[in-house]
Amino acid sequence: MNKIEHIGIAVKDLDVSNDLFEKLFGAPPYKSEAVASEGVMTSFFMNGPNKIELLAATNPDSPIAKFLEKKGEGIHHIAFDVDDIVAEIERLKGEGFVILNEVPKRGADNKIVAFLHPKSTNGVLIELCQEIK
Amino acid sequence: MNKIEHIGIAVKDLDVSNDLFEKLFGAPPYKSEAVASEGVMTSFFMNGPNKIELLAATNPDSPIAKFLEKKGEGIHHIAFDVDDIVAEIERLKGEGFVILNEVPKRGADNKIVAFLHPKSTNGVLIELCQEIK
Repeated sequence: MNKIEHIGIAVKDLDVSNDLFEKLFGAPPYKSEAVASEGVMTSFFMNGPNKIELLAATNPDSPIAKFLEKKGEGIHHIAFDVDDIVAEIERLKGEGFVILNEVPKRGADNKIVAFLHPKSTNGVLIELCQEIK
Repeated sequence: MNKIEHIGIAVKDLDVSNDLFEKLFGAPPYKSEAVASEGVMTSFFMNGPNKIELLAATNPDSPIAKFLEKKGEGIHHIAFDVDDIVAEIERLKGEGFVILNEVPKRGADNKIVAFLHPKSTNGVLIELCQEIK
């Protein structure tokens, strides 16, 4: 794992939160992207080597809608950048972590991604992500 | 704000979680440090330009003990590295953020720190931290 690629934050209203994080970082989001398969609209802020991904639900049955309903706005996941996601999944399975996507899936921001179950990671939803070259 | 300096994760048992994050990162914590004023014991893992700080309560009245009681284990805060914490506090106050420590206080890992109230930041507890030279 090379670095924190991004932190995902669940928000209710993307426009309101885009304004808020623009004030925080002093710069607007560098992109917005819908991920239809996950029922979310995202926006990304750059912070040096790291990113912040805001996630708003576009579908009441999406995982983000359920998260917001249960826990309210806040940090949803941490994503770590990896060079070889398939090898990392194998290594972490061997260490006893519960992998939610044994076959990586397409994520936002030109990545393939896999999540680890928070029950195996101290309540933290962890994403592995590898950039598609 | 230069980067995500660290993510703070509240844990119940530091030894158990040290083992877990050592498996995740493939390397042990690079340091442990008590912060008596906050009633916590911490340990730090390096992840490229970023760090993960595990926080365990050493005092049942500490903020981390209360967080664990209310929300269970999980992400507690995000800390951003800043060059001039006093100037950043002023800038963010001007933008309408609620600053919990208008005078920065001493934190772990040779830092002075200040927190923003999560009510003003989408439910995310944000720490600003500046390294003490």
